[in-house]
Amino acid sequence: MKLAIGIDIGGTNTAIGVVDEKGEVLNKTSISTPSHGDVDQYIEEMASAINYLKKKVKNDNPEAEILGVGIGAPNGNYYNGTIEHAPNLSFKGVVPFVDLLKKKFPDYKAITLTNDANAAAIGEMVYGGAKGMKNFAMFTLGTGVGSGLIVNGDLVYGADGFAGECGHTTLIPGGRKCGCGGNGHLEAYCSAPGMKRTAFEILARDNAADSLLADKSFNELDSKAIFDAAEKGDKVALEVFEKTGHWLGISLADTVHHLSPEAIFLFGGPTAAGDYIFKPTIESMEKHLIPVFKGKVKVLKSELSLGNAAIVGASALVWKDIE
Amino acid sequence: MKLAIGIDIGGTNTAIGVVDEKGEVLNKTSISTPSHGDVDQYIEEMASAINYLKKKVKNDNPEAEILGVGIGAPNGNYYNGTIEHAPNLSFKGVVPFVDLLKKKFPDYKAITLTNDANAAAIGEMVYGGAKGMKNFAMFTLGTGVGSGLIVNGDLVYGADGFAGECGHTTLIPGGRKCGCGGNGHLEAYCSAPGMKRTAFEILARDNAADSLLADKSFNELDSKAIFDAAEKGDKVALEVFEKTGHWLGISLADTVHHLSPEAIFLFGGPTAAGDYIFKPTIESMEKHLIPVFKGKVKVLKSELSLGNAAIVGASALVWKDIE
Repeated sequence: MKLAIGIDIGGTNTAIGVVDEKGEVLNKTSISTPSHGDVDQYIEEMASAINYLKKKVKNDNPEAEILGVGIGAPNGNYYNGTIEHAPNLSFKGVVPFVDLLKKKFPDYKAITLTNDANAAAIGEMVYGGAKGMKNFAMFTLGTGVGSGLIVNGDLVYGADGFAGECGHTTLIPGGRKCGCGGNGHLEAYCSAPGMKRTAFEILARDNAADSLLADKSFNELDSKAIFDAAEKGDKVALEVFEKTGHWLGISLADTVHHLSPEAIFLFGGPTAAGDYIFKPTIESMEKHLIPVFKGKVKVLKSELSLGNAAIVGASALVWKDIE
Repeated sequence: MKLAIGIDIGGTNTAIGVVDEKGEVLNKTSISTPSHGDVDQYIEEMASAINYLKKKVKNDNPEAEILGVGIGAPNGNYYNGTIEHAPNLSFKGVVPFVDLLKKKFPDYKAITLTNDANAAAIGEMVYGGAKGMKNFAMFTLGTGVGSGLIVNGDLVYGADGFAGECGHTTLIPGGRKCGCGGNGHLEAYCSAPGMKRTAFEILARDNAADSLLADKSFNELDSKAIFDAAEKGDKVALEVFEKTGHWLGISLADTVHHLSPEAIFLFGGPTAAGDYIFKPTIESMEKHLIPVFKGKVKVLKSELSLGNAAIVGASALVWKDIE
């Protein structure tokens, strides 16, 4: 039985799992992501965790063979195996992450790293709904908006290893402030916090005191609450989904005009809202496409399960790399 | 001496040339593009013109060998070798252009077709400033705005063969009417006619009777006149370039966020304005990039000569296909 390790490096936690060729997580654990930038100790702890998982898996199945490690990390550079100037991590500068881990596991066939949205795209191709697809895009909607682009069967890393940052394309020139410091980016409109901002704009515009969302503070409101309100027919909540879909559709159309993908997968919390988000997104995308692309591009819900997707996506890097 | 035929199918004229491996046009001719949709007669005339050029070249150099034919055509589908529903051509529906031409030249190693901007991108890679580059983009500025995208050394054709239509990405939601029927597309702002529209907006806004552009009708004004006026310090003309660069820079940044190219090449009449257009474009692109991409992406003038670029670009398809 061939297995891969998938690692998801988040701002506070690092999840580590053993994944089989079908994308099933056989075992997982987690360690803290250091808050004081001590990379060497972090690598030690990561190596211990990997060895612990390896031992457990071998106990259950002596034939098990771990082929490599795939890592999803913010500002992960696939080409160099480095994490570079990641704003949400405590490591300074450029960390040669893959090299450090290779010293611990010199026999592994692949130790490879990219950002989480790219890993999710590869996960979708290896385990999910994009099996057999050669050209597709993955948009991850969450705290931010990430993306991974597949062209001719390979992930697009670009000249420097950082391609696929569609969350920071300009949706509305001079529009809302984005977390990155820019203005009007897709992420500022169609992330979960972006949906909250839209709700507050509508509440303010309509003076909508009777909305189910009118009793929540800015810091309380989240996309789940907006969904619940939409289910009860709340007009503000329904308009949030309409607007979010309208904006997301414009951006997806831009990606289609670039790459003409077979499908675009949406991943993340807001996609749980189903038709509330998919219907206006697809309508807007179609409206913004030139005739040659109309009716061709599927917009699909990711088949990766929300809980394990980051580990599973990262592990997929190993199969893709060995292939 | 190995040679390729390059064919540029325009709305009224079809240019045909023999091109060597360095991108030099050794001989060229042209035929009319039919206005009444007779494909068979058109193919006959095209075959005659190719045979005529072949004979001339063989006269000069008996060793000359023509390896194939590359065709740049509106709505050209690379995968199927078809021209599909091209709005500016008289052919109805889907024309199996490559198959028809293959019947005339069964011995050629490559007969291949794509749209003109894609052909220009391949021309830049084979003969021009993009030699050795694996990831770059080409934007062609003219009557419209076209684009060709190169990822991992190959042109991006996408799932259906039509990828690379960046001229129809949405720059300003709900903005200017585009020739395709959409709104706010890049092409409506940064094509040569787009620059004229900008000039008229500024004339109207400022009531700028003293502008050098104030004596020209909408149908008289062109991007060359705007350049001439800018050279004389005309404020309206200078602002046209500022705005065009501002808008184009936003779109180039969007493409960088997708693909992280090493360089973006600009081609076409408006690029003759040099710094007037390049300076604001680069400034705006840099301003709209997230930090990881800042200062990395070159914006360069195409090295293809304006007069022969379409033929030369199309001929490059042959070398790329044989490779």
